[in-house]
This record gives sequence, C-alpha cells and structure tokens, in this order.
Amino acid sequence: MNEKIKQALIDIVGEKNYTDALIDMVSYSYDGSQHKHRPLCAIWPDTAQHVSEVLRLANKQKIPVIPRGAGTGLSGMAIAAKGGIVLDLSHMNNILKISIEDRLVVVQPGVVYADLEKALTPYGFFFPPDPASGKVATLGGNVATNAGGLKGAKYGTTRDYVLALQVVLPDGRIMRTGSRAMKSVSGYDLTRLFVGSEGTLGVVTEITLKVYPKPTATSTALATFAKLDDAGRAVSQIMFSGIIPSALVILGRHTILAINQNTDLNLPEADAMLLVETDGYTQEETNYQIQKVIDIFNENNPKEVKRARTEAEAIELWAARKSAYGVLARIKTHFVLEDVTVPMANISDLLRGVEAIAADHNLQIATFGHAGDGNLHPQILYDGYDPEEVKRVEAASADLFRLAIDLEGTLTGEHGIGLSKAPYMALEHDAVAMDVMRTLKKTFDPNNILNPGKMALEA
Amino acid sequence: MNEKIKQALIDIVGEKNYTDALIDMVSYSYDGSQHKHRPLCAIWPDTAQHVSEVLRLANKQKIPVIPRGAGTGLSGMAIAAKGGIVLDLSHMNNILKISIEDRLVVVQPGVVYADLEKALTPYGFFFPPDPASGKVATLGGNVATNAGGLKGAKYGTTRDYVLALQVVLPDGRIMRTGSRAMKSVSGYDLTRLFVGSEGTLGVVTEITLKVYPKPTATSTALATFAKLDDAGRAVSQIMFSGIIPSALVILGRHTILAINQNTDLNLPEADAMLLVETDGYTQEETNYQIQKVIDIFNENNPKEVKRARTEAEAIELWAARKSAYGVLARIKTHFVLEDVTVPMANISDLLRGVEAIAADHNLQIATFGHAGDGNLHPQILYDGYDPEEVKRVEAASADLFRLAIDLEGTLTGEHGIGLSKAPYMALEHDAVAMDVMRTLKKTFDPNNILNPGKMALEA
Repeated sequence: MNEKIKQALIDIVGEKNYTDALIDMVSYSYDGSQHKHRPLCAIWPDTAQHVSEVLRLANKQKIPVIPRGAGTGLSGMAIAAKGGIVLDLSHMNNILKISIEDRLVVVQPGVVYADLEKALTPYGFFFPPDPASGKVATLGGNVATNAGGLKGAKYGTTRDYVLALQVVLPDGRIMRTGSRAMKSVSGYDLTRLFVGSEGTLGVVTEITLKVYPKPTATSTALATFAKLDDAGRAVSQIMFSGIIPSALVILGRHTILAINQNTDLNLPEADAMLLVETDGYTQEETNYQIQKVIDIFNENNPKEVKRARTEAEAIELWAARKSAYGVLARIKTHFVLEDVTVPMANISDLLRGVEAIAADHNLQIATFGHAGDGNLHPQILYDGYDPEEVKRVEAASADLFRLAIDLEGTLTGEHGIGLSKAPYMALEHDAVAMDVMRTLKKTFDPNNILNPGKMALEA
Repeated sequence: MNEKIKQALIDIVGEKNYTDALIDMVSYSYDGSQHKHRPLCAIWPDTAQHVSEVLRLANKQKIPVIPRGAGTGLSGMAIAAKGGIVLDLSHMNNILKISIEDRLVVVQPGVVYADLEKALTPYGFFFPPDPASGKVATLGGNVATNAGGLKGAKYGTTRDYVLALQVVLPDGRIMRTGSRAMKSVSGYDLTRLFVGSEGTLGVVTEITLKVYPKPTATSTALATFAKLDDAGRAVSQIMFSGIIPSALVILGRHTILAINQNTDLNLPEADAMLLVETDGYTQEETNYQIQKVIDIFNENNPKEVKRARTEAEAIELWAARKSAYGVLARIKTHFVLEDVTVPMANISDLLRGVEAIAADHNLQIATFGHAGDGNLHPQILYDGYDPEEVKRVEAASADLFRLAIDLEGTLTGEHGIGLSKAPYMALEHDAVAMDVMRTLKKTFDPNNILNPGKMALEA
C-alpha cells in the first residue's frame, strides 16, 4: 500500500479502523464463493462522511473500493478482484429507528439480518426476505444483492421492502433516494437502481425498510413422489389453486439420497419431495390452505403424504430441508451452489435437465430449491484438487445457465452475478440491455472504482 | 406539420394511423389534469417496430414524442407541453399470454386495466393495483405512472408486479428488461427504472405482469369520529395491531358534508370517517381481522360503528367513498385533486394541515384518501374563471406540498409529477438526487425528445 494513501485513509477513519496486516488481507480475500483475491487494505468507516471521504480519495487516485458486509455472498461479489480497498461496513450497525405505526425501520448497512429480526419480534413484526445466511448476513448486503429466501413466493425479496436509501456516489457525493411514505411516485425510482447493483454504483449507508406483521399461524405438509412429473404437476396445480404457500420447497432425488446416507431421517426413496407451509392470522385459514395442497398432492400419485399436527411435527418435516445444504457440502472437498430460476411451470423440466447435465459431465449434482418461485439450487459436488474435475464443473455450470435461459428463466434468482456468472450475462440480456447497463455504470462511476470486474460491466 | 416528416410518419404507420386534423388535435391537447397544449399530430403504432421507426425519425429531427395511453393521468403527463407527436398506444391492446401456472400475464401497453381484470376473473386471479380510473386507463399508463389504488396498503402498487418489459429507447433501439421468472437478480433493475418514469426514458411496448389469486372472502366496517385525533389514533393502532386491511379509507369533514348535501346517504356529521375492508381465503379470517379493527374503533371514542353483515350492506358502506370524487367534482366549475402522502402516523397532522391551508387561502378543500398507506386526496374546489381564485389555488397547492414534505412525506403517492408538481421536485429531492435524475434523462435521451418538460428534468 502506497504510504501516502495509507496515511490519508488513516486520517479519515482513524488508525484502529485501518489494516493491511497479511493475516487480515488473507481473510478478506475470501467470501462465500470459490473465488479469492487479496485486497491492499481494509477499513471500517463509522459514518457516511467517512465513506464519502474514502470514495473521494479513491476516485482521485483511481483505486478500487470493494464494499463488504458479512461476505456471505455466493457469487464472489465481495472479492477484491482487482485489489484495492475493502470497505467493511460492519461497524455501521445501528438500528436507527423502529416505527411500527409507520410500518418501517431505519437501519445502518452493517446491521445483521437476525439482529433486526430479534428487535422486531416483541412487536410481532418482521422483515420477510429471510435469506438462508440471515444469522450473519448484513442488511447492506441484502440490499446490494436483493436477497431472497424461503418465503419469496409469498413475500417477495428485499427489493419489495426498501423504501428509501442514503447512498454515497463514487465521487463522494451523498444522496437520499425514496421516501418514508409507504408509496411515492416522485421522480425516477433511484432506490431500486441501487438494490441488487452489487456495490457497483454507490455505497449504501442508510436503509429504510418496510416491515410486515408476522403471521401468527402456520400449517405444514410434505409429500414424496416416485415420478418427477407428478411433483411438477402438483406445483403447477398449487399455483393455479388460488393459494400462495408461504414456502414451497422441492428436494430432488440425489438430495434425498444424500440426506438418507448422512442422517437418520430415513426419507422414502423418491424422485422428488415437496414441503409446503401456509401461513395466516388464524388456524382455520392455514388449515384451509394446507388442505387444498394435500388434496392436490393426493391427485398426483404421491408415495407418501404427511401433515404436521403439532409444532414438533412441523420441525421434523423441515429437518430434511434444513439438513440439505450442510449434508451436501460435506460429501466432497468442494461445491458450487447455483440458483437458476425459471417460470414455475418449467420447474420439472429444469430438474430433469439438471440430472441430464450431471450425467453428461459425470458429476454429482444434488438439487433442492424454492419451487414456489421457480428457483432451484443445483449443488455441484466435486474434488477441487482434481483440475480435470474442476473443468467438468465449469462446463456443467455453463450448461446449467444455458438450460435456465432456454426455459425462459434467469441465471440467478437470488445469489447475484458477481464474478461467477459475469461470463454468462449476455446469454440472458440482449445487446441493447447490456449496453444500457454498461452506460449506467460509466455514468455513475467513470473511473470504475466501485467493485470493478463484477457483472460484466467492462467489456 | 412539416410535409416531409408527415409523409415519413405515414410511411411508417400507414395513412389511417396518422392524424393532424384540428378536431383530433384539440382532443389530444387535454388529459385528466387542468393542463392543455396542442400537439402537431397523433399516430397509432401497431408494433414495437413502428414505435422504433418513429422514435428514430423523431430523434433525428429532434421532434418531441409524447407516449399516451387513455389520458386519465391527473398531473399532465400526457400533455404535449412542447408540441410534437402524440404516440397513442391504444391500438396495441392485445393480451398476449395468460399463464396462471406461472402466475403471470404478458400484455401490450394499450390493454385497458378492466379488460385484463375481465380476462383474469375466470381463473380467480387479478392484477391488484386497481387504480380508480381502471375502467378506462391502460396498463402502459399504469406502468408509466406506477399506478396505485384502493388496495395499496396490502397489495402495493404497479411496481411490485412488473416482471419484465420490452422498451423502445429514444434512439429507436428495442430492449428487453427483467425476466419471466418470479425473481431475478441478474444485472441492474432496468425494469423498475422505467416503471414510473412517465414516458421520459423510453416507450414500453410489452409488459409482463405478476398476477395474484383474488381473495375469496371480505369483511367491511365503518366508523365516524367527532374528533380527528381519535380517527388518527385508530389508524395508527390498526397498523400496529398486526393486521393489514385490504382497504383503509379516510373521509374528512368537508367531504362528509358535501356528500350529505348532494346525496341522500345521510352520513352522521363528523370530523372523520374510516372505512375498512379486510380480505382473505376464509370468512373466519376476515371476521377475525375486522373484529380487531372494530375493537380499535371502539377504544377511540367513535360516534358510530357499523359492520356490514351482507354483501348488500358492504356496498352501502362503500357508497359514501364511491360518491366522493363525483360529488365534489360537481360543486364548483373546476377542481385539482392532489395525492400528497406521508408516513402513516402523520395522517391526522396532514388532514389538520389541509384544513388550515383551506382557511388560510379561503378555499374549499375536501379530503379523502388511503389512510392505510398515508395517501390523502385533498380536492381543491374552485371557480376556474376567477383569476384571483386560481392564484389562491396555486398558492394553496404549494403550501400543501410543503406540508407533505415537512411531515416526512412525498409530493405524490400515485398521480406522478408530470407538469403539475415539476416546480416542486426540489422540495422533496436533494440537489444530488436531482442531478442524478437529470443525468439519467440526458444519458437515455440526449436530444430530449421523449415527453419533454415533465418532472423538472431540464433545469
């Protein structure tokens, strides 16, 4: 690190909030993805003013700045792909306001999802996106990636809850977007331009989120199907039936097998398992909804249908899903977790296509996902020390992305583009859309200092 | 109209799809607002290709193009403020796809809201925004203005339902944004940059909308309050109670008086009336919710509380709200209908402020609105032939906007900026946000041909 710039950074954030120690740089070279690259230094700003001064300096010196939350992202968004300064926002972790009458909270970007959840529980309210990484992931990261989760089919994703932002632009200017009012159509929707922009357009330093009353009743049911087509038809019929489950999870054959081999859950052997939760204000309504789901299960040749009668039984039904990621992650030395997403009616075609890709490339791919919004997580398990197998994984990933696009879907339902999917952006977006995205990037960040190398914005 | 350009336009859309007849130009000089300005000509494109060729021509010749749906907008968005070509999209009115299994529809921009509603009814689905103008307004206009309606508090606005767009850019390039998948985080959210952009960035030629199962049960209740504070407190308590009504309407004192003077509804004299609907899958749950609302009414000194026991009784309770706009519109020769919106807890301060502004400017202002999302509609009634009164109306409007901003709200919850609120944009948005919006406009439309003069993008 250039000594003059180092001193300038220390002058802004203070000595204790700066590091370029090797041990820290090694930690910061990773995130939740398989990518790694070492930054030059890391700093912890305390205020939007700090962020502004750092960006002004970096912009003048043309040094990359990588905003970082908890680093749980799965697409390499927090990797310092071109070196530079990691801007770790974890110190800005105050909940600034909880206003239940207005159905909103105001938070700093470093607040952990679970901490907001805890703070809202006494009021009976919640912030619904519920990403799987919620125990550690920060709300700034949720906004940067437009995080989704188990309940997306009914409650949407982060984007649907962001009312307003404070953002620092690459040139250091501080801007407010949106409104504390529940709805506003005043000017361009700058707020949602930043949601999901992966830290490439500005640094979010304050977030106003809509919150929602937490449902007080739930019902849970599960079915296994010998044939994938029957499960796929059940998903379509549920979507057609007029109810929207709060969760509609699908587990594929290899995931079921892996769970059986590595736990004592003893699931029936099947091509697919569907796990459904309905929620609401009264037990009558959640029962009414789950009964509709069970009727649909029964019309589609299930091997087995189970309904939870108690809270404990519901937890038992959820155990299979909750174990999937961990069980699968331990099978081989490495894995890639994808998040291809298609229109709901194409979900069984997607699942079938994933199995064909696994066979083509002689790889183990286990799949689970959110059938309620067409989002599957094929988890490719491989030996990362075998260069030939790594190559097959890369080829299989590329096939997977092409399959999703062929099925009218998207490369990524919730993990983002980052480094992992940057080479495939043009599969999904036409040349005009790619040009518009690159023009936006250039307009906001002409020196390309903010999180460079991500989202294929430089080609 | 320049003969060469006229011929070029006719070459694109055909003779029968071009007009510059005076009688048509007079019609096209109006929309739902008090503004008017005559265009040079109007054309009806049939395809995105037509739109592309027209924009290419207009961009080269630097002629303004004003995209237009049904012209029901209340802020002057469809007014040819600087002359030019009205691009009337009403011929592009096909519903291209209804895919209930995927919970989506694909439509052209000229489809009328009510026609989509009719097409979805057999499936038990709906597109929730439900703008008051839905019987004539087009979906393209809904997207351009991010239209909201009665059910915004529970179901959000148009923005929350737009999955994907086909857009023609000012230079004629055709682009697709978004995805048919229920969720996608692939690249910048270009879709929502166009939603609410009032036809200033591009022309939407195809829309993919999420649809939603229509609730099968509702409950309705009404209360009147002698004191505004009691009604305001009831609204806050309802929002705190854990339920979200599908509609929560407020009527102010002058609206109640006007309805009594002009109908035989015989409402009790009161400072405020609250009308609430709850919805769901089962009667149990809607009853459970409405009972919570009634309990809250009863804790806040109501003059009267009524609950609909039948469908007919519900219609009767809604009659007051439904009559408001029409009754008020007939009282004086002219009116302006505003849509200031504030955080919910500030709704009674807003209502009280409106009454003070009416007194200050010696004007008749009647107010009703969507208390459930903090959106009030002060309707200023005046004699448009009295220049001195017109001046007082303008001064009162300005005060109204300042009041909304002072109460942490927005100039416009659902009608948009257009011409009406353009002079007030800087009250709400800081200098950096204004600069970013103007930069976006310049980046997309360097020749300023698309709907120029709106949203204060030129200063």
